Amino acid sequence: MRDVSEPFTTIRFEDDELVLIDQRVLPTEVSYVHCSDYTQVEFAIRDMIVRGAPAIGATAAYGYYLAALEFAQLEESEFEQKMQEAFKVLDASRPTAVNLRWALERMDSVRKTHTPEGREAVLTVLKREADTITAEDIEINRAIGRHGSEVIASKATILTHCNTGALATAGWGTALGVIKQAYADGKDIFVYADETRPRLQGARLTSWELVQSGIPSCLIPDSAAATLIRDGKIDCVILGGDRVAANGDVCNKIGTFMLSVICKMYGVPFYSVVPISTIDFSIASGEQIPIEERDASEVNTIAGNLIAPQKMAVYNPAFDVTPHQNITGIITEVGIIRPPFKENIERIRKSHVENC
Amino acid sequence: MRDVSEPFTTIRFEDDELVLIDQRVLPTEVSYVHCSDYTQVEFAIRDMIVRGAPAIGATAAYGYYLAALEFAQLEESEFEQKMQEAFKVLDASRPTAVNLRWALERMDSVRKTHTPEGREAVLTVLKREADTITAEDIEINRAIGRHGSEVIASKATILTHCNTGALATAGWGTALGVIKQAYADGKDIFVYADETRPRLQGARLTSWELVQSGIPSCLIPDSAAATLIRDGKIDCVILGGDRVAANGDVCNKIGTFMLSVICKMYGVPFYSVVPISTIDFSIASGEQIPIEERDASEVNTIAGNLIAPQKMAVYNPAFDVTPHQNITGIITEVGIIRPPFKENIERIRKSHVENC
Repeated sequence: MRDVSEPFTTIRFEDDELVLIDQRVLPTEVSYVHCSDYTQVEFAIRDMIVRGAPAIGATAAYGYYLAALEFAQLEESEFEQKMQEAFKVLDASRPTAVNLRWALERMDSVRKTHTPEGREAVLTVLKREADTITAEDIEINRAIGRHGSEVIASKATILTHCNTGALATAGWGTALGVIKQAYADGKDIFVYADETRPRLQGARLTSWELVQSGIPSCLIPDSAAATLIRDGKIDCVILGGDRVAANGDVCNKIGTFMLSVICKMYGVPFYSVVPISTIDFSIASGEQIPIEERDASEVNTIAGNLIAPQKMAVYNPAFDVTPHQNITGIITEVGIIRPPFKENIERIRKSHVENC
Repeated sequence: MRDVSEPFTTIRFEDDELVLIDQRVLPTEVSYVHCSDYTQVEFAIRDMIVRGAPAIGATAAYGYYLAALEFAQLEESEFEQKMQEAFKVLDASRPTAVNLRWALERMDSVRKTHTPEGREAVLTVLKREADTITAEDIEINRAIGRHGSEVIASKATILTHCNTGALATAGWGTALGVIKQAYADGKDIFVYADETRPRLQGARLTSWELVQSGIPSCLIPDSAAATLIRDGKIDCVILGGDRVAANGDVCNKIGTFMLSVICKMYGVPFYSVVPISTIDFSIASGEQIPIEERDASEVNTIAGNLIAPQKMAVYNPAFDVTPHQNITGIITEVGIIRPPFKENIERIRKSHVENC
């Protein structure tokens, strides 16, 4: 068993502060940002100090708890109003990842349930719930890794996109967690990492995690993936997901759809890796998922330098939707969901979600 | 007729110097590099001060002439040896574009033909030949533009990749020349420009030319093209070519193949625009085209800043090959070549090349 544990913590809570590794400045700088109120947490999510659907969920949970701490002295009606406001602000920090809303609703529900027990009890259970969401995420990722590792052959070459590692989660990772698990299990894999423009999460974050884990790997421009797939150099594509619809459509980082088309055309297995909390059972298909458009500066400036004329307009969608027809399987903590996705996702909803 | 003429010169020769606009620093800086000997010209091509297959051809022709000037005082056998050396050095500056070899062979042939007339005559005809190659390129591009404009509907939205404008040629441009011609003709087009990682020719150069021409346009990350094509937002893709094989396979900037697959899948017309000099009649298919691999620093640093861990390996192919099956037409100065490509390219070889 190779050791691939990460020597850093993406999210930790100590001394009434949420401490986040600053993902904007990696890999050249390793520094941490301290958030002591929920508006700082909202900024951390919006400005992508922290990113990755599961990491955003855990972060928002602590943001909700920080709001409760901040407003703990208020009367119930005012407290209720402030908490609703904090919910809305945190919920609006990023529009696409469903884990954000999922974590906030979980916190909100716990708060309401325990309100009769008094403010002190509410604070205690909220802190415990945020800790639980975080700890569960790591456990879930470990389970995802065990399920997913089975699709990786002993000398597989894997292509991944964006960052889905410990940095995108409370720890270990989803898609990169599967890859790390395969490597930890002794498989001699090789990983191609898409750089993932415009924010370069592949170059900056996935490369950093791969180098730290010692996994043989190579960075490529996003445009170079297609010929590698066509030329038989990729055994499978394994990447994450920010929101999965009830029919198995996957919304993920811009560029995912393109990879899925090339994989389908050349018969290369294509897996999305997500915790069940990323599945939005309330929406029938990917067409209903809002696609976040981010600022032009992500595309037309790099490290503060303008790389395009100021007058040139920019279109910068952060995500795209991959239709379930292009997906081989969705790897989760309860196993690999395969076609027919709609039926199999409904089965999971019934057995794993309604019963919880 | 809208005025879309460019207010700059990509390549000019004056006072025994080749003057090139420095494409490494556009669009934030407009400066010119002066080359007074052929090794400086070789560096200008290799370091991509000048790039684009047709521009490289004209540049190499002047490089050859500068070598002849430099060695003009040598005895014939020594002169011959030095000219062969200069040919080899210039020819090796970039491996993929066929125009480079084509222009050098044209210069070499002229030199050999005129050797009996004495060194002075040779210098005169070499200068004239380089000027002719340059002037012809602009004329050819104008003819390409007239032929190509017919595939652009009056309110078309066009996607292009890399830079194929005046900067990629002696003037006017190939694929961007077609787009400019359509706009000059009064068509109300809209252009999406791929940023074209890693060297960002789309962000830096095409955007600059589009803004200068006043053509309504928008810059996108390369990964965003696929959903625009899928969602019916693109009427046609028009891009260049660095080498075309006798069967119509097109070698072009990395990312071209990916676009061609998405276009084919969603029924969007896909055109490569090249002068006939870009067709390499000597090779049967794209598989025989050498793909240049460029330095890791193009991918892992931006404006001198490291954006990936130093220890991460990089794979950086500059080009890819698009199979002719994915191509709707190849737009040239003698008309649009359509399938069956092999037969139609052979017809062009017979009528337009052998007869020249």
